[in-house]
Amino acid sequence: DRPFTLIAGPCQIESREHALEIAGELVKVCGEVGVPLIFKSSYDKANRTSLNAGRGVGIDQGLQILAEVRETFGCPVLTDVHEPPQCAIAAEYVDVLQIPAFLCRQTDLVVAAGETGKAVNIKKGQFLAPWDVANIAAKVVATGNQQILLTDRGTSFGYNTLVSDMRGLPEMARDGYPVVIDATHSVQQPGGKGGSSGGQREFVPVIARAALAVGVAAVFMECHPEPDSAPSDGPNMVPLDQVGGLLATFKAFDSIAKANPITLD
Amino acid sequence: DRPFTLIAGPCQIESREHALEIAGELVKVCGEVGVPLIFKSSYDKANRTSLNAGRGVGIDQGLQILAEVRETFGCPVLTDVHEPPQCAIAAEYVDVLQIPAFLCRQTDLVVAAGETGKAVNIKKGQFLAPWDVANIAAKVVATGNQQILLTDRGTSFGYNTLVSDMRGLPEMARDGYPVVIDATHSVQQPGGKGGSSGGQREFVPVIARAALAVGVAAVFMECHPEPDSAPSDGPNMVPLDQVGGLLATFKAFDSIAKANPITLD
Amino acid sequence: DRPFTLIAGPCQIESREHALEIAGELVKVCGEVGVPLIFKSSYDKANRTSLNAGRGVGIDQGLQILAEVRETFGCPVLTDVHEPPQCAIAAEYVDVLQIPAFLCRQTDLVVAAGETGKAVNIKKGQFLAPWDVANIAAKVVATGNQQILLTDRGTSFGYNTLVSDMRGLPEMARDGYPVVIDATHSVQQPGGKGGSSGGQREFVPVIARAALAVGVAAVFMECHPEPDSAPSDGPNMVPLDQVGGLLATFKAFDSIAKANPITLD
Amino acid sequence: DRPFTLIAGPCQIESREHALEIAGELVKVCGEVGVPLIFKSSYDKANRTSLNAGRGVGIDQGLQILAEVRETFGCPVLTDVHEPPQCAIAAEYVDVLQIPAFLCRQTDLVVAAGETGKAVNIKKGQFLAPWDVANIAAKVVATGNQQILLTDRGTSFGYNTLVSDMRGLPEMARDGYPVVIDATHSVQQPGGKGGSSGGQREFVPVIARAALAVGVAAVFMECHPEPDSAPSDGPNMVPLDQVGGLLATFKAFDSIAKANPITLD
Repeated sequence: DRPFTLIAGPCQIESREHALEIAGELVKVCGEVGVPLIFKSSYDKANRTSLNAGRGVGIDQGLQILAEVRETFGCPVLTDVHEPPQCAIAAEYVDVLQIPAFLCRQTDLVVAAGETGKAVNIKKGQFLAPWDVANIAAKVVATGNQQILLTDRGTSFGYNTLVSDMRGLPEMARDGYPVVIDATHSVQQPGGKGGSSGGQREFVPVIARAALAVGVAAVFMECHPEPDSAPSDGPNMVPLDQVGGLLATFKAFDSIAKANPITLD
Repeated sequence: DRPFTLIAGPCQIESREHALEIAGELVKVCGEVGVPLIFKSSYDKANRTSLNAGRGVGIDQGLQILAEVRETFGCPVLTDVHEPPQCAIAAEYVDVLQIPAFLCRQTDLVVAAGETGKAVNIKKGQFLAPWDVANIAAKVVATGNQQILLTDRGTSFGYNTLVSDMRGLPEMARDGYPVVIDATHSVQQPGGKGGSSGGQREFVPVIARAALAVGVAAVFMECHPEPDSAPSDGPNMVPLDQVGGLLATFKAFDSIAKANPITLD
Repeated sequence: DRPFTLIAGPCQIESREHALEIAGELVKVCGEVGVPLIFKSSYDKANRTSLNAGRGVGIDQGLQILAEVRETFGCPVLTDVHEPPQCAIAAEYVDVLQIPAFLCRQTDLVVAAGETGKAVNIKKGQFLAPWDVANIAAKVVATGNQQILLTDRGTSFGYNTLVSDMRGLPEMARDGYPVVIDATHSVQQPGGKGGSSGGQREFVPVIARAALAVGVAAVFMECHPEPDSAPSDGPNMVPLDQVGGLLATFKAFDSIAKANPITLD
Repeated sequence: DRPFTLIAGPCQIESREHALEIAGELVKVCGEVGVPLIFKSSYDKANRTSLNAGRGVGIDQGLQILAEVRETFGCPVLTDVHEPPQCAIAAEYVDVLQIPAFLCRQTDLVVAAGETGKAVNIKKGQFLAPWDVANIAAKVVATGNQQILLTDRGTSFGYNTLVSDMRGLPEMARDGYPVVIDATHSVQQPGGKGGSSGGQREFVPVIARAALAVGVAAVFMECHPEPDSAPSDGPNMVPLDQVGGLLATFKAFDSIAKANPITLD
């Protein structure tokens, strides 16, 4: 019944200045609208379509920058981890460890993230049904950690396309963990015949508004000052200067949804 | 930018009294919430899963009952047609002719409906993409009739399941025709190993709210005083006494969406 | 355990000469390979993507031509029907009445076809699971007609694409009716943003060979002397002069499959 | 144009005796039919549905057992790797390193496997299109290693189901690398509401025969003396005593396919 949180930031950490600039702008617009912010950015893009695509600044520099964002703006920060040993390292700098969708079935990674005691954001693999995430959450719970978020980022639908099944949101919420809609990656066009993924930025508000009306705890939405020149996920990131306008509308939908919650059973 | 319309009624016309009772109740709750009503019911279920399933009262009696609903309550009425000659007959009694999803590619039926001059509600086949309906609308336009509604009732997703792609709603709206979300049949579980279709009534509000937040002209939602004893689509019809409560929430989402329209391009 | 039958011919009857020429060539190559032929062609394409697309010669002329093919070459002929009254008419001229995939759930059409006593070829809708066809077959059986064929022509898979699930073939065969693989329409790319369907002719042998290795009673494969100038389904018809070569390979796969049948349970 | 290879063995290494017994039996039946064998088994099941599911004997013991199989029977051995450092270790014991489907987009793992100089079997993720694997193969090629196999193990199709698209086999073969059909995991029913994956063992021959008729370089088929008591993938493993019978039929289909290759363009 609390207002939704925005999980936002650029797909990858491009530089210290870049991250701080975007975080500052997000803090400002979130403050104006009254939406809590979790700053998200990646230190390594470990699963690029093509070998030649840029992977980011690396774990050491990346975590330093995230820590500086947290210190400068006082907002929690989130990043994704790719191998078990990264979990304990990242946990010293960030508030939320994110399990990438492709890796959500890797038991060692999920357990290592859980063991840090930090919040763990599990992205539902594109190849899983909404009810399948309960087994993954149970792997975190087994470490004694119940700080779990569950994120929907779309489900495979034919080739090179995802679909967002709105029924999945209350389904994923059955066990009581906060559910997040990832409006950025849900509109990705994965793979493709070329060497990178496409995306449909114009549908980000479609997915976010629909999910908010159903009821979610948070909206995940990557943004960038100049998405078309971003090194990754440019086609589906929202221009930074549009975030404030979107948030105001999102908040209105969220208020109605929170006052009229949908529950199954 | 106008408020959404409710297209509602029992899946099939069970009797004169039954239809009038439900129409009366719907007129009342729609009036209370300030939502226009189009009464919907079928005189023939022409595509039942099983041969033994009840098909309804037939075209003669059915159209008489629909006309009486219209006369009694002053609301427009909608019914579905299944063969070209039925179009001209039904057009004398109803305001909107509906092309069933399975039949949306039957040129003669679509053209016959268009030629009546009545509004034509085209249901997007479960086997079509959102952009495919433009070719069907063009068949109606070719008759000189531009009163067209386009309805999404879900898309095939694996076996015995449909998924509602929210991106399809603005996609279907590109040509300017009103877009309807059919929240009842979108949660159908078509076919199945048994002799009838299943459904997930609990997800009707999920689909309707999501679609309203994206922006639709109307919500199609079948309802029944006792869904579990209805002769068809019982598992996905909403209990009549819940319609009023749903409408109030729907209206709140609709108001925000209409004030903040999503447009592609 | 008998060899497979070829159901082939041009998508639509373009003219008497055209049909006879193609039938003659098919009779020749089938005879050489030792494969029984059922000649297939349509008198009306009732569900074209676009209103302006050609629909064919019509029922009167079309049935005359089919009858002449049958008389001239002594092979059974098959055509598809689109409305109940066409069944009795077509039954006077052809050996097999085919229910189009989009229409497979229209009870009146299926029953009217069954009542002719002719063989009925039911195409599984793209929106149905393999086990769903049993309910359709039961509608024919209820007319006292057990001459039923069940055809797989692909299943919806995302947008504008079909997929052929080979597990569906033995699943559809559970009740003992002959199962047909439609290798032509399984490689259709339905709809699309343009005004017609695309297709992938190069995959016709892929689907046919795979299905024959699993075990089917017949292969449905449309062909044309000049597919690229055909009025419909050109992109997925096989050039007539390649049919003989394909058949020889098909027969080899079929022989092994018939000697080593797959049965479920 | 060479005969197909069988990649087979139990899903996981249960014990030294168990692996040697199965390998011995497979060597015998492959020898009788004249089919080359690559023995496959896993030392760690790193992505079990449930935390409590058994994971296997571990990398040290597992690789020792695989080496003993290779030495005892003279057949190449294959195992899957889950983190980059495992590649160099496993490469000292096995002939083929396999990239699991869920991990096929993890650049570091793919590159580490490539750098060993051993053959790398890339499993196409359930979330990828056939043409997407070319980008993964390119990551291996960039290490100077061109010994690549590409395996299809099914594609997401709705929830908890996979479908095998036979068109994907020649599509994946476009770059000339050998293509493998994984008939075991293609019939998996991933996830499910319970704590483990289901499977449809009866469809293993369906998928294998279909793929062989299209044309593949190898068939991947897990087997077990008592599948129903196996710790993982029991529902989709083939009983060991049925392998010989299946192979004889597979070989017949393969011979025809190799004599009549399908090529796109």
